[in-house]
Amino acid sequence: MKRIVLLTCMFLTHFFATTQSTQVNTYIQANQKRIIGELMNFLKIPNHAKDAGNIQMNAEFIFKDMERRGISNVQLLYPASKRINPAVYGEYLVPDATTTLVFYAHYDGQPVSPEKWHASLEPFKPVILNGKVETGAKTITLDEIDTKRYPDARIYARSSSDDKSGVMAILNAFSALQSAGITPGINIKFFFEGEEEAGSPHLEEILSAHTALLKSDAWIICDGPVHQSGRNQLVFGVRGDVNMEITVYGPTRPLHSGHYGNWAPNPGLLLVKLLASMKDENGFVTIKDFYNDVLKLTDKEKQALAKIPPIDSMLMKELGFIRPEMKNIGLSEALNLPSLNINGIESGKSGTSAANVIPVSASAVLDLRLVKGVDWKQQQERVVQHIRDQGFFITEQEPDMQMRSTYPLIAKVRLEKGYNAQKTDMQLPVMQKIILGLQKTSQTEWLLQPGLGGSLPLYVFEKVLNVYPVTLPIANHDNNQHAENENILISRFLEGISIMANLMILSSDK
Amino acid sequence: MKRIVLLTCMFLTHFFATTQSTQVNTYIQANQKRIIGELMNFLKIPNHAKDAGNIQMNAEFIFKDMERRGISNVQLLYPASKRINPAVYGEYLVPDATTTLVFYAHYDGQPVSPEKWHASLEPFKPVILNGKVETGAKTITLDEIDTKRYPDARIYARSSSDDKSGVMAILNAFSALQSAGITPGINIKFFFEGEEEAGSPHLEEILSAHTALLKSDAWIICDGPVHQSGRNQLVFGVRGDVNMEITVYGPTRPLHSGHYGNWAPNPGLLLVKLLASMKDENGFVTIKDFYNDVLKLTDKEKQALAKIPPIDSMLMKELGFIRPEMKNIGLSEALNLPSLNINGIESGKSGTSAANVIPVSASAVLDLRLVKGVDWKQQQERVVQHIRDQGFFITEQEPDMQMRSTYPLIAKVRLEKGYNAQKTDMQLPVMQKIILGLQKTSQTEWLLQPGLGGSLPLYVFEKVLNVYPVTLPIANHDNNQHAENENILISRFLEGISIMANLMILSSDK
Repeated sequence: MKRIVLLTCMFLTHFFATTQSTQVNTYIQANQKRIIGELMNFLKIPNHAKDAGNIQMNAEFIFKDMERRGISNVQLLYPASKRINPAVYGEYLVPDATTTLVFYAHYDGQPVSPEKWHASLEPFKPVILNGKVETGAKTITLDEIDTKRYPDARIYARSSSDDKSGVMAILNAFSALQSAGITPGINIKFFFEGEEEAGSPHLEEILSAHTALLKSDAWIICDGPVHQSGRNQLVFGVRGDVNMEITVYGPTRPLHSGHYGNWAPNPGLLLVKLLASMKDENGFVTIKDFYNDVLKLTDKEKQALAKIPPIDSMLMKELGFIRPEMKNIGLSEALNLPSLNINGIESGKSGTSAANVIPVSASAVLDLRLVKGVDWKQQQERVVQHIRDQGFFITEQEPDMQMRSTYPLIAKVRLEKGYNAQKTDMQLPVMQKIILGLQKTSQTEWLLQPGLGGSLPLYVFEKVLNVYPVTLPIANHDNNQHAENENILISRFLEGISIMANLMILSSDK
Repeated sequence: MKRIVLLTCMFLTHFFATTQSTQVNTYIQANQKRIIGELMNFLKIPNHAKDAGNIQMNAEFIFKDMERRGISNVQLLYPASKRINPAVYGEYLVPDATTTLVFYAHYDGQPVSPEKWHASLEPFKPVILNGKVETGAKTITLDEIDTKRYPDARIYARSSSDDKSGVMAILNAFSALQSAGITPGINIKFFFEGEEEAGSPHLEEILSAHTALLKSDAWIICDGPVHQSGRNQLVFGVRGDVNMEITVYGPTRPLHSGHYGNWAPNPGLLLVKLLASMKDENGFVTIKDFYNDVLKLTDKEKQALAKIPPIDSMLMKELGFIRPEMKNIGLSEALNLPSLNINGIESGKSGTSAANVIPVSASAVLDLRLVKGVDWKQQQERVVQHIRDQGFFITEQEPDMQMRSTYPLIAKVRLEKGYNAQKTDMQLPVMQKIILGLQKTSQTEWLLQPGLGGSLPLYVFEKVLNVYPVTLPIANHDNNQHAENENILISRFLEGISIMANLMILSSDK
């Protein structure tokens, strides 16, 4: 019964929205070269969260762009404690609107390793290729851009998908409405963060200082990829995240492996033994209590999950492997478990620059993802305890000779700050309204994900502002987010603008 | 009885040689600034064995230097198959001499990682410091050089100890004799190799093409460090050596660790599991048959070993560790066993450039040292078989999609070429003569090492020329050979010249 009501509603809404949606799409189509050109200019500004000078340049770029578009009350919101990495705020308030949505994206990006990028690419020199770089796709110019002619055209650059395309999709959606003379059905607030990839260390501080300014009914988080099947999705939760770095030690100076090998302790060996002890032969984490405290999925969440198209086989084929890490655990189940990923390992040198030495130290960076119920500090401490249980003395400093002469095994552990997982109830009235509004943009039913594998510090909205976020990704799933050769499919970016515009049209009283 | 004869002999020889030794030392003392300046100029030429242009520059530098010193028949000996990395040859023949010694050193060096060197140092910009760089030692100029005033002065540069100081010690020893008007007691041949650090791939070819030119009674290999106790040593054997690189695979493109972590296989995890499986908890290699075929030490060798001063505790204190890698195995015992060292491991990025990704591959370079009896090819194959036994499909190529869709675990193994261990019988008459000749330079008894931990392809002299080598190191043991901050203690370098000169004085009929 409920389903029939919903479908009827959807049909009416779709009919009602058709003219406005068409106007929006016409605008996007007519202006695509300019829109893409603007995104590419934005991508030229390096944006590692710890690169203060360039971060400020990015913030100012957005600031000017928002003012130019006629957005009101544009301002840089700095953390109270430090004048770094401002969030860029702006608003467009509609007299009769009763619903207020904050549109969020972030403008900072992950660190880059330019030498890992394809020889023809540089992280901050965006180019358009007619397909994937690995398949030898050719460069096309901005003038040649036409998503009908080049349906697989992509912009390659750091943050092309994560998450500068989010920023620009939101801003262009607003401009599309303005140009078409469409009045938004809601109050729109814009909030672009500048240190999400650094773990949003000051987000809470910024929100706390501006609770009145940021008053709203929900946050729309434009980040992450659409479903791997290509279908649009709304995501009602994210995993928590915390990193840590472990360094173990060999001799105080690098030693010739012939004169000292297998006598002086090799830190690479100590590290592989330690890391290997963290997972069993079936890929499950062996650290004590690691899977404790996990909240089980509700029935509603299980139902939503059941509608998600199966993609494991397709993905495995695309990604070139036939055995997942955890035995008998599929992707969606894996994403609802806490995880431990070895981001990086380094000991000595490999490849052609490898020398026959025993290095002085070896280190690894771990990424722990957390699901609802698991506390990040406690999870980190479980890993530390595991290292201790393997016989290591734990230190936060480089070991000195005194420490070295006391403990046979020493691990320096650098604990980064993290945050917990977050979940939004998809039955909340404002969430139901958003679902309905978005459904207008597509004949295909939107997927409703109880939780995404990725992490954003979304718990903070609930904690500080008592409001819930929902994540609305626009990027293609094969975007190489966080890694080399990051890219955004241009057709997805343009569709993202359309989606955001339709969400802004959302009539608050329907 | 034999001992009394030996001591009497030593005393007489020492007395006989005193005047000439003093002349040599006076020359070295008077010319030390020029000698050190020449070594520093030599160190400015980069010398990675695969850097063809610079290798040629090094060879030409030596060529000119030898001609300038009055050495005869100077020539570049190229491998027949390729015009690369020549050995530089020269000779000084004495009419009545009945003994011919070839003095060997190599002019190429290990690869460098400049970013790992101390901030004040660059591998190919040699500087003199008044002590170790790690202790904040100050730079001193060439003009200030005085080994009495600065006994711990060191030259920092790649190959300062390994092995350009060897080349220059030999050449300056010859000049010292010339300047003092001392006629050598033997025929001297010079042979400076240019690809030792690359595993001497063409040494056999060069020797084979010049067997008549290189006819001799023994080779003096000037390479490696003196004993850690600071005492001089002669080394009668070296371990064999062979490297290999292992690469294991994750997804075909780097993946976001939140969206795919613990589902897509992490190559870092695969690699640590694989490497960890190669050694047991006590540090012993677990690879099947790894310790087979090892020839036991003879009684004579055991007696010589018993005279070596114990250094394990001193070294462990200096190197900052209290537990050696193999339980209950001391350094000298470890050096007489085959070894497996993890030179380098790389997966993703570590430190501040670590990103939250599952990398596409992870790799490690292994260094296998071999003792007499163990064949390098067979040892390499044992490691490959071990990898296979852990479930990996072995390939020499990057895996393609077909391979990826067939095997759950794939390891690309790159096998480098290696060589076997070598041993010289210290009872051979020419070796006894050399021992006696060297003893003249010192009141302290020379140590006689049955074998060094390090490797040189010395088997080739026996194989091609039917002659035996003995290794005579001059470098300080804390020279950071093969690694960052390589250095030579200037006093050791100057003593090295004196040692080589005394060996050249060696009367062939005594």
